[in-house]
Amino acid sequence: MTNFNELTLPLLKTLTLKEKYALAAHLRRRIKTIVQKNGGHLASNLGAVELTIALHSVFSCPSDKIVFDVGHQAYTHKILTGRGDRFHTIRAENGLSGFPKPSESTSDAFIAGHAGIAVSAAAGLYSGMRMNGDTGSVVAVIGDGSLTNGEIHEGFNNLPKSGGFIVVLNDNGMSISHGVGAVADYLLKLREHKEYYRAKKNVKRVLAETGIGREVSQAISGTKRFVKNVFVPSNLFENYGFKYFGPCDGHDIAEMEKLFGIAKELDEPCLIHVRTKKGKGFRPAERDPEHYHGVEKRTTTPKSATCSDVFGETMLRLGEQDERVCLLTAAMAIPTGCAAFAEKYPTRFFDVGIAEGHAATFAAGLARSGQKPVFAVYSTFFQRAFDQLVHDCAIENESVVFALDRAGFIGDDGETHQGMFDLTMLASLPNTTVYSPSTRDEIAACLEQAVQNNGVTAVRYHKGELSGTNDASSETNFTYQNNENNKKLFVTYGRLFEAATPHIKRADTLKLVRVVPFDQLAVKAAAVYDEVFFAEEGACCIAEKFLLSLMQSGFKGRFFTRSVDKFVPQGEVSRQMEMFGLDGVSLGDWVDNAS
Amino acid sequence: MTNFNELTLPLLKTLTLKEKYALAAHLRRRIKTIVQKNGGHLASNLGAVELTIALHSVFSCPSDKIVFDVGHQAYTHKILTGRGDRFHTIRAENGLSGFPKPSESTSDAFIAGHAGIAVSAAAGLYSGMRMNGDTGSVVAVIGDGSLTNGEIHEGFNNLPKSGGFIVVLNDNGMSISHGVGAVADYLLKLREHKEYYRAKKNVKRVLAETGIGREVSQAISGTKRFVKNVFVPSNLFENYGFKYFGPCDGHDIAEMEKLFGIAKELDEPCLIHVRTKKGKGFRPAERDPEHYHGVEKRTTTPKSATCSDVFGETMLRLGEQDERVCLLTAAMAIPTGCAAFAEKYPTRFFDVGIAEGHAATFAAGLARSGQKPVFAVYSTFFQRAFDQLVHDCAIENESVVFALDRAGFIGDDGETHQGMFDLTMLASLPNTTVYSPSTRDEIAACLEQAVQNNGVTAVRYHKGELSGTNDASSETNFTYQNNENNKKLFVTYGRLFEAATPHIKRADTLKLVRVVPFDQLAVKAAAVYDEVFFAEEGACCIAEKFLLSLMQSGFKGRFFTRSVDKFVPQGEVSRQMEMFGLDGVSLGDWVDNAS
Repeated sequence: MTNFNELTLPLLKTLTLKEKYALAAHLRRRIKTIVQKNGGHLASNLGAVELTIALHSVFSCPSDKIVFDVGHQAYTHKILTGRGDRFHTIRAENGLSGFPKPSESTSDAFIAGHAGIAVSAAAGLYSGMRMNGDTGSVVAVIGDGSLTNGEIHEGFNNLPKSGGFIVVLNDNGMSISHGVGAVADYLLKLREHKEYYRAKKNVKRVLAETGIGREVSQAISGTKRFVKNVFVPSNLFENYGFKYFGPCDGHDIAEMEKLFGIAKELDEPCLIHVRTKKGKGFRPAERDPEHYHGVEKRTTTPKSATCSDVFGETMLRLGEQDERVCLLTAAMAIPTGCAAFAEKYPTRFFDVGIAEGHAATFAAGLARSGQKPVFAVYSTFFQRAFDQLVHDCAIENESVVFALDRAGFIGDDGETHQGMFDLTMLASLPNTTVYSPSTRDEIAACLEQAVQNNGVTAVRYHKGELSGTNDASSETNFTYQNNENNKKLFVTYGRLFEAATPHIKRADTLKLVRVVPFDQLAVKAAAVYDEVFFAEEGACCIAEKFLLSLMQSGFKGRFFTRSVDKFVPQGEVSRQMEMFGLDGVSLGDWVDNAS
Repeated sequence: MTNFNELTLPLLKTLTLKEKYALAAHLRRRIKTIVQKNGGHLASNLGAVELTIALHSVFSCPSDKIVFDVGHQAYTHKILTGRGDRFHTIRAENGLSGFPKPSESTSDAFIAGHAGIAVSAAAGLYSGMRMNGDTGSVVAVIGDGSLTNGEIHEGFNNLPKSGGFIVVLNDNGMSISHGVGAVADYLLKLREHKEYYRAKKNVKRVLAETGIGREVSQAISGTKRFVKNVFVPSNLFENYGFKYFGPCDGHDIAEMEKLFGIAKELDEPCLIHVRTKKGKGFRPAERDPEHYHGVEKRTTTPKSATCSDVFGETMLRLGEQDERVCLLTAAMAIPTGCAAFAEKYPTRFFDVGIAEGHAATFAAGLARSGQKPVFAVYSTFFQRAFDQLVHDCAIENESVVFALDRAGFIGDDGETHQGMFDLTMLASLPNTTVYSPSTRDEIAACLEQAVQNNGVTAVRYHKGELSGTNDASSETNFTYQNNENNKKLFVTYGRLFEAATPHIKRADTLKLVRVVPFDQLAVKAAAVYDEVFFAEEGACCIAEKFLLSLMQSGFKGRFFTRSVDKFVPQGEVSRQMEMFGLDGVSLGDWVDNAS
C-alpha cells in the first residue's frame, strides 16, 4: 500500500502493522499541514492518530458506531472514513466540519462539540440499536478532561449491562490546559500503576470467565507487551460497572487492537484506558500542547487586542482594587484571558474543569459568603449552567458576574459553538442585568459596574478584536444620536453598532449597552420614530422586548428586525455576518433603502 | 427539658441522649401532623430527624453552615433553628418555605430545591469563608439519589483540600422512587459491608495520623457500637479525596455525634455515610415511602383526572401503536404518569436517576437509531437540560419529544419549582415545535402529533386537573372565536384560556395550542383588531413573538400583555394566578374594561 489517498476502511483492516505506522506518519503530516493553514485542534488530533487507526482496524463504521466526545480527536477518523479528499476544506465555509457531524457522514455516529456527552449519546444509540435487533458495537471515545464533567458520570451511572458497549478513555494527562481536581489526581495514580504482572493473570481469568476462547487467551499471553495492560481491580470505573483495561500505550497500534478485540467480544461494558501524548510527532506541540490545542487560522489571528485581553486586564485591576474579587473558569483559563489574574491571585482563581454547572453554583456560594465572583465562560458553554443560573443564582439574588466570551458569531467552529442563546437564557430572568459592550472602554466600564451590582450580572462580548476606535464609547447604558428628525432609527447592541453606523446615512442610531433591562429613556427616545430597525447578532430576543416596550410607550410606527433564526454554519465571522444580512454594508442598505 | 417548644440550639447541645430521643419523637409527631395537613415531603423528613438532631448537637448554625441538598430533609432543621412556632405555616402563602431558603433564615446556608447542587454550593461557601478567615465548618447533607446527578460529581471533583468540609450522605436506599444505576448498586454493596472490626483499627490509625488526641481515640475505642462505622479503604468516595466513614446507623444519635465530632476535627474533607429509613416512625410511610414521598395538601388533591394521567394513558396507547415509542424519566416516573407504560413496556422505559442532561442526550441517541423517545420531565427540571436540548437534540434535528409536566404555576413548592422558563428555552430554537394544550383531548392529540414530528417537539401542560369540559377542544393548532367585530381580541395558550373565556364578554378569543411556531393564519386573524390582549402563565415570551409577527402583518392597534415577571412565591395555584392578575375574573376585567 503506497497511495494512502485511496485507502478504504476494508483495505485498512488488511494493512500490515508496518504499513499502519506508515499510514500514521502520513496522516500526522497531513493533519499538521492543514491545521496550520485552516486552524483547528492540532495537539489533540496528533495524539489520537494511532488510536483511531486501531479503532478502525477492529470496528467497522458505520455498522459499529464510534462516538467522539468533543471531537478534538476526530480528524484521523474523518480522513479514514472517506473524507480525505475534502480534508483541506476542514472548518472552511461549506467545508468539512471540525467536529463529528452525522449530517456530514454516516460514519459520524453523533454530533460533538461540547464535552461530556459521548457516554450518554452512545448509551442511547446502543439501546436503540438493540431494540432494532442490531448487534453492532458502540464505542465512546472520551478525553480525560471529560471526566471532570457531570454528564459523563450521569452516563456512567446508566451503562448498558451487556456487551458491545465500550468506552475508550484517551488520557493525555491534560484536559485543555491541565487536568484539574480529584479525578485528574486519580488518573495520574492509575497511569503510573506498576502492577503489570499481576494483571496478566487477571486478564487470563477474565477471559476464561467470560467465555472467550483459549485461542485469544493464548494469543494475548504470548505478547510480552500486553502484560502492561493492567487489569486493576476495584477502581473508579469498576465501581460504575465497567470492566477496566489499562492503561495501555495509545501509540502502540498492536496493543490497542488486541484490547479493542477483547472488549468487542466481552459480554459486559468495558472501559479501555489509553495513554497518549498530546501533540505527538510534532515537537513544538509536544512541548507546549496548551498553546497548540486550538490553532487559529493564519488569516484570522487577531492583529490587535481582543475582548478577552481587555477582560483579562480589567480583572487584574479589579482584583487589585478589591480582594473579594474572584475569578472562575471551566477549563478555559487562557482563551478567556484569565492567565494573568490566575498568576497574580492564585488563591482567588478557580479552574473547576469542564463543569460549568458546578462553576455557577460554586460562584453563588462564594457570593453568599461575601466574595465577588466572576465566572468567565464562552456563551455556548454557558448553556450548560442554565438551571444553576436560575435556581442557584437568580432566585436568592446572589451577586454573581458572568463574563460571557464568544457571544455572537464565532466563525470556524460551526453550529455547536456559536454564541446565539445567552440572551434568551438571561433576558426573562428577574433580578438580572446584562451588558453587551463591544469597545475597549465599554467592556472595562461594564465589568467595573458588574462587580458593584446586586444580583446576577452578565457582561457579554464577541470573539476576537475589539470593536470601535480609541475614542469609542465607554457608556454602560446607551448612546443615542439624533440628527435625522425622527424618521428612521437604527437600534442594536454590541459590535454590530460599530460595523453598521459608518454605512447608515439616513437614520438616527441607538446603541444599547445595557440590554437587560434597557433604559426606558432609550425606549422613550425611540417611540417617536416612524420606523425602527433593530438588528441582533443572535437569536431574536432583545428586539422583541424592545418592541413591546415601544408599544407600551405609544409607538405608532413600523418595526423591522434582523437576527439569527437558524443554526449558524461554519465560516469566517465576516461571512456569517453576510449570511444573515448583519454586515455593515447590508445593514446600511437595509436601513437607508427600506420602504 | 419538657417543653421542646422553647428549645434553642445552645440548649439542644445540653440535652441528655434520652432527652434527644424524646425530642426526636416529639418532632416526628409534629412533622407528621403538619405535613398531612399542609402537604409536603413526609417520608424523607421522618427519616432525617435523628440525623438533624445529631448535626445540631455537634455544629453551630449559623457560624457553621449546613447545606441541604434538595431540602426534603430539612423540616427538623427548620423547627430546631427558631422556626418551630411558624412550622404550621409550611408551604402556605406567606408561610415557611418547604425548602431551605437563605432569605427566610440565616440558618439556611443556601437555597435548595433542585437536587445535586449542595456539594458545589458548600464548596463555594467554604472557599469564601476561608478567604474571610472564617474557620467554621461547612456540612453538605445529600441524599443517595443525588449521587445519580452529574453536578454532585463536578462538586466532588473540586473538593477543598483542607478540613471542616463535610459531606453527610443520607442513604435511605432510594432516591425518590428507588435507586437507579451503577452508583445505587455500589451503595447497596457498601451498605452491607461487614468488615466492622478491621475498621476499628483503621479509624484509630487515622486519628493518630491526623493528630486528634488520645482522648477522643480512646473514647471512640471504648464504644462498642462505634466499630460498626467501617472505614473502607479505596472506595468510590476516597477516589475523590474524601476520608470516608460509614456506613453508620442514621437513627443512632450518639454514633452520629461521635462521627461528626471526628470529621469536624480532621484536616481533610470527610464523607460520612449514614443509613436511614425513609418514613421512619410512621408505619404507612415506612411500608410505602414512595407514596409518602410528596404528600399533597388535603384540600388540593385533584378530584378528577390530571394532565399527567392523560399523558400516561396516551403514552400507553402510543406505545401499543408503535414499538419505536420509548419513555424516559429522570427519577419522576410516578408523578409524571409513567407507571403504566413502565410496567407494560419495561424494555422501552428508562428511569435514569436525577440526570436530566443525560436523559436528553440519551434520548437523542435513541432517536438517531430510529426510535421515538419521549422524555417526561417537570418544566422546572427541564432547565437542567438546556445545553443538551440545543446541542444534542436541536442542531442535528433529532426527533425527541419533551413532555413538560408542571408548566406554569405549581403551587406550594415555591420559587424553585415553578415552571416559568421552558418557553424561553424553546421558543428561539430552530427546528423546534412546541404545543401548550390544556384539555384532555388537546393533550392526547398533541402527543400523538409530537411522536410523528421531525425535530424537537415539546408538549407542555400544567400541574393538576385538566382544564375545560368534556366537549372541549382537541385542536393542535389554534382556535379562534370571532363574534365581536374585530375590536378586541384576547389571546393566550394553555389553561388560562378556559379560565378566562367565561369571564370575557366583549372580546373575541384566540387560543394558541401550537405556540412555537404559531400559525401565521392566527396572526393574520389577530392583525386586524384594534386591541390585542395577550396573557401568559409564565415569563413573557410568546406574547413578544406574537407582537413582532403582528407588526410584520401590518398591525396598527394597541397591544397589552400580562405575564409572570417575578419569581413566584409559594401559595395555592389559584392565589398565584391572582397575584399576577391571571385568574379568570382578573383577565375578564382586564380585557372587557381596558381603555
